[in-house]
Amino acid sequence: MKVLITGGAGFLGQRLARELLSRGSLKDQQGAPQAITELVLLDVVRAGDVGDSRVRTEVGDIAERSVLERVIDGKTSAIFHLAAIVSGQAEADFDLGMRINLDASRLLLEVCRQRGHRPRVVFTSSVAVYGGDLPEIVQNDTALNPQSSYGAQKAIAELLLNDYARRGFVDGRVLRLPTISVRPGRPNAAASSFASGIIREPLNGESATCPVAGSTRLWLLSPRKAIESLIAGLEIDAAALGNQRVLNLPGISVSVDEMIAALREVAGDAVAQRIVREPDARVEKIVGSWPGQWNTSRAEGLGLSGDRSFADVIRAYIADEGIEVR
Amino acid sequence: MKVLITGGAGFLGQRLARELLSRGSLKDQQGAPQAITELVLLDVVRAGDVGDSRVRTEVGDIAERSVLERVIDGKTSAIFHLAAIVSGQAEADFDLGMRINLDASRLLLEVCRQRGHRPRVVFTSSVAVYGGDLPEIVQNDTALNPQSSYGAQKAIAELLLNDYARRGFVDGRVLRLPTISVRPGRPNAAASSFASGIIREPLNGESATCPVAGSTRLWLLSPRKAIESLIAGLEIDAAALGNQRVLNLPGISVSVDEMIAALREVAGDAVAQRIVREPDARVEKIVGSWPGQWNTSRAEGLGLSGDRSFADVIRAYIADEGIEVR
Repeated sequence: MKVLITGGAGFLGQRLARELLSRGSLKDQQGAPQAITELVLLDVVRAGDVGDSRVRTEVGDIAERSVLERVIDGKTSAIFHLAAIVSGQAEADFDLGMRINLDASRLLLEVCRQRGHRPRVVFTSSVAVYGGDLPEIVQNDTALNPQSSYGAQKAIAELLLNDYARRGFVDGRVLRLPTISVRPGRPNAAASSFASGIIREPLNGESATCPVAGSTRLWLLSPRKAIESLIAGLEIDAAALGNQRVLNLPGISVSVDEMIAALREVAGDAVAQRIVREPDARVEKIVGSWPGQWNTSRAEGLGLSGDRSFADVIRAYIADEGIEVR
Repeated sequence: MKVLITGGAGFLGQRLARELLSRGSLKDQQGAPQAITELVLLDVVRAGDVGDSRVRTEVGDIAERSVLERVIDGKTSAIFHLAAIVSGQAEADFDLGMRINLDASRLLLEVCRQRGHRPRVVFTSSVAVYGGDLPEIVQNDTALNPQSSYGAQKAIAELLLNDYARRGFVDGRVLRLPTISVRPGRPNAAASSFASGIIREPLNGESATCPVAGSTRLWLLSPRKAIESLIAGLEIDAAALGNQRVLNLPGISVSVDEMIAALREVAGDAVAQRIVREPDARVEKIVGSWPGQWNTSRAEGLGLSGDRSFADVIRAYIADEGIEVR
């Protein structure tokens, strides 16, 4: 089986690649495990060498048709489309966001359609497709109402994938991801970057600024569970999805104050005190428009699950990254 | 004031043009009436000559940037974007639907953005953005779930306009139109074409086929009220719309059996008996996915209204078209 990951040099792409290589196989559309014979990692920078002969790294602009034609052929049977311009950057550079989050996603679907073999395609979407006056718990039939260009672009990509799937051009699935926390590495241009930063930086002995009110409720998913969900989402039986290809993934609903309390519980007072409150209206406006929780019954019915508690998420982060708490 | 109508040679475009010329003015963004000095009618075929020196007809492919640049300049302050590929045709020719319903709509927004003067733009959308399991009355926060490529393309255009408006590139408004009935002329490739045909053809002494069950509930708006709503939609104060630029227009909810009963009431038994029941699964699937009614409180609060009864709609059609009932 040939597998493609776009955004393959990114944090989730790299983690997903390692997990797929370690598992060695994916279920095919009939539910039978098939060995992964080739894993293509496409990104604008070359993905790190993982020292595995099944991996082929490709560098290119995903909004160029020739690049997608190079990495998707008639034998590519599973595609994880993770490449994206994050929320803050898509708000700052409208054209770049449209080019990558909308045009490239559509082009990917077009190249699959042109190949004609109806591959499985996983798109990731986001809490940012919601906004405005929301019920306390967003339901499966709650209208999308994005309040950022990133959210609008993701909502459009969802509609495209759903229609390409309905027409039989791809066997598509959209996974709406909660905000991922705790991400390792450095802050990025996502409006939600702080949701990792306020845990990661204090654990590294550095101070971190928290740009939103402590009462702000976030809907979170750990990287471990995100990777597990991406693979499970690809393997779900198409018949169980029917004509509705979008799934709200399970998460945990925690306020920023609860996140800080969990950090204090796991790592102690000295660490938690490295968080500096510094309200930022731009971030509050975007993040405040996102739902703090959504109904996960459909995803759970299909076998997907989230984390148990945010304290557990922090402990897993500490274990995965080999951090020595001081 | 310079006004543009795309799809200006079409049925609604022509009616709208006549109404605008007869009114002679439109309110500007401050609510003050301004004389219409130029009315540009763009379409793929030349719009009929209405013998008015204010009218300029333009022929061109609306998916070409140069065509839009020719008809939108820094003084174009009101744009009615009516050009579209109808539902049945967009389902039969996916690429054509994408090109006109999505690409051309986006290009129109882009040319407005490039001009930099934030013109008022009215998009029309449709019952077809809804689908799947719907509440008996669709609410303002009911999720879109299009079951046709036309519906998906309209839903995407809504999201684009909303984001372009939020960013201040245009002063946009999306009017979700009920199915228009009674349209004069000939059947077209819309899945809803029969909703006019079963009234129009019998009144012309011809037989008409009804492809859906009599219990099928439709959400209808007369051409007169549609034109009135388009103009009112453009003139609504932007502040009253805020960041939610999509409006579900008032309509009337009638079953096909009730439509036929209204025809019998207005025109007699002999006319109503010209309708032949001939189920068509393709049409039933598309039309059956549309809502039979939606909540109209927001539009009504903004001063918009629908028809009183379908019998009145038929009477208005007979009067407008000068039909002699036999």
